[in-house]
Amino acid sequence: MKIDGKHYRTIWPAAGDAVDVIDQTRLPHCFETVTLRTAEDCARAIGEMTVRGAPLIGATAAYGIALAMREDASDEALGRAYDLLLATRPTAVNLHWALKRMRDALRNRPRERRAEIAWQEAAAICDEDAETCRSIGAHGLEILRGAAAKKNGMTLNILTHCNAGWLATVDWGTALAPIYVAHDDGIPLHVWVDETRPRNQGASLTAFELGAHGVPHTIIADNAGGHYMQTGEVDLCVVGTDRVTANGDVANKIGTYLKALAAKDNGVPFYVALPSSTIDWSLNSGREIPIEERPPDELLKMTGRLADGGLATVEIAAPGSAGANPAFDVTPARLVTAFITERGVCEASGEGLRSLFPERR
Amino acid sequence: MKIDGKHYRTIWPAAGDAVDVIDQTRLPHCFETVTLRTAEDCARAIGEMTVRGAPLIGATAAYGIALAMREDASDEALGRAYDLLLATRPTAVNLHWALKRMRDALRNRPRERRAEIAWQEAAAICDEDAETCRSIGAHGLEILRGAAAKKNGMTLNILTHCNAGWLATVDWGTALAPIYVAHDDGIPLHVWVDETRPRNQGASLTAFELGAHGVPHTIIADNAGGHYMQTGEVDLCVVGTDRVTANGDVANKIGTYLKALAAKDNGVPFYVALPSSTIDWSLNSGREIPIEERPPDELLKMTGRLADGGLATVEIAAPGSAGANPAFDVTPARLVTAFITERGVCEASGEGLRSLFPERR
Repeated sequence: MKIDGKHYRTIWPAAGDAVDVIDQTRLPHCFETVTLRTAEDCARAIGEMTVRGAPLIGATAAYGIALAMREDASDEALGRAYDLLLATRPTAVNLHWALKRMRDALRNRPRERRAEIAWQEAAAICDEDAETCRSIGAHGLEILRGAAAKKNGMTLNILTHCNAGWLATVDWGTALAPIYVAHDDGIPLHVWVDETRPRNQGASLTAFELGAHGVPHTIIADNAGGHYMQTGEVDLCVVGTDRVTANGDVANKIGTYLKALAAKDNGVPFYVALPSSTIDWSLNSGREIPIEERPPDELLKMTGRLADGGLATVEIAAPGSAGANPAFDVTPARLVTAFITERGVCEASGEGLRSLFPERR
Repeated sequence: MKIDGKHYRTIWPAAGDAVDVIDQTRLPHCFETVTLRTAEDCARAIGEMTVRGAPLIGATAAYGIALAMREDASDEALGRAYDLLLATRPTAVNLHWALKRMRDALRNRPRERRAEIAWQEAAAICDEDAETCRSIGAHGLEILRGAAAKKNGMTLNILTHCNAGWLATVDWGTALAPIYVAHDDGIPLHVWVDETRPRNQGASLTAFELGAHGVPHTIIADNAGGHYMQTGEVDLCVVGTDRVTANGDVANKIGTYLKALAAKDNGVPFYVALPSSTIDWSLNSGREIPIEERPPDELLKMTGRLADGGLATVEIAAPGSAGANPAFDVTPARLVTAFITERGVCEASGEGLRSLFPERR
């Protein structure tokens, strides 16, 4: 996608043995890039959410392995980098998927070729992710076109939670890919952007992305989405996910479950867009997904722009009060209208998933 | 309730023709009081949320009439003050209730006595509100005692949204009154405090109140409550309300509806605590309640404490993105387990309300 007319991915090879990423903790206040030179750099970037979003976490971990192999191509170094990167975020399964793919690609290969193989594999993961997201956009377009057809030319109102846009992937995004494709196709649409507390990925990243692309949108408190569904101002919801279990349960950013409940209560379709790398075929229920607890300071402090343009971090809560910060929740499959994947659209159920991925039967 | 050992109400007569209130826009960062000398001062304090909470809005409006009568006791002045104060906040019905009560008390009374009558009536509204809230606490205690009995000595976990504590009333609070009474009674309890975006009344006011009283509590993002209900970490919810319609529908702070949906989905009891002045017998459904739209800046900016102790306001969202800020939503009666009122506990339905208030049959 483009920023100020220049095309960017969210991660790309840099001069020397390194990759560059956009520092997403500085958005929307500053657009800055960071250079990652080691597996440790990549692990820190994932843990501190310099990069975030399930597909981009996977891509960054892949480059983390590739950078480790340039330093030391031994099995031990591979194992250390694998373990280090896997421990950064427990909920997103793409991390595990990408690391396993890298390890499989390097297993039984000569040490002297591993650095090159790993670099190529990481690049392939990135290219495939961009292509996968483009396909999600194309399949999602059909859904948005159908919904728009019922509006008789009136604007289609779509609600999304967190950021599942191009900043969460290598390019295009998952939940936002259909929105970009539909907008470019001339479908009149408007996006309700959930602020997404506590890290505000909606107000900072999704709004930034949509604004840069010219998509009409309005930021709302996470609390407001149910009200807008009750008053008929949301035609459909679309979100991304960090892990889908084999029965169709969906782990996504904390608060997704509440929006899915409201959608069900008001007859609003609720779609989840995902690359197949987000499906965890090894788990039979969302109850088995580990939910990451993040530092309470993410909730109790807030960073923003002062009137003079500088950045400041302020404490916003009552002094001395503790906070708790679970990063994800699980939306049961029964609340999801359908999945939008790179292979097409399916029912949110084990049967639905296996109809698109028959090799998993 | 007490702050640093000193007993406070949220509004009290001051020297001269004036009342003092706690400036709730400065909490939890600074504890400051503001003197209101005219009906215009009172209207501004309500509109800018220096005072907030349905019962306290009513009490402040009552003193607004009383202050107007000290300046000019004519029918015209009464009408002007009434209209000015009524226009400040459209959703809370206590405002209308208190203004009507003041007007009824002054109607057909001699001008020379109106200032005195109005002052006494406003003071009576405040005293009655404190007593009403104490009764709500006593009736709510029975519910909390019953819930605690099922916990076999383990801590009772209660979730609340926004601030319906003593800061929202003259004293004691509505939703928090049972919690204070139960805590003082030795029931082991812990409160999950919804942050309550966009104005953060939970993180700033409820956490401040509970902390000052020594009640164990944890601030969570509004997004997190559903997750904690799914994982069995919420035993019951209790919230306040700004207007209950004759069929039992509940207008309360935006986001309440989402928590009620999650409570229903997880079999968690969901209670609404209210003084009878919050019941709007003239409306038959929550769909008829006007929902206040507040300035988007409440969402897009945030005020907090800098590391040096000073206060700063920062812009937190993507520059150029618009925001929308509905202040309330409507929770249908079907999602509410029961009402806790000064007369006792009843089913959340028209029949339930009329069983406690038979004079309305």
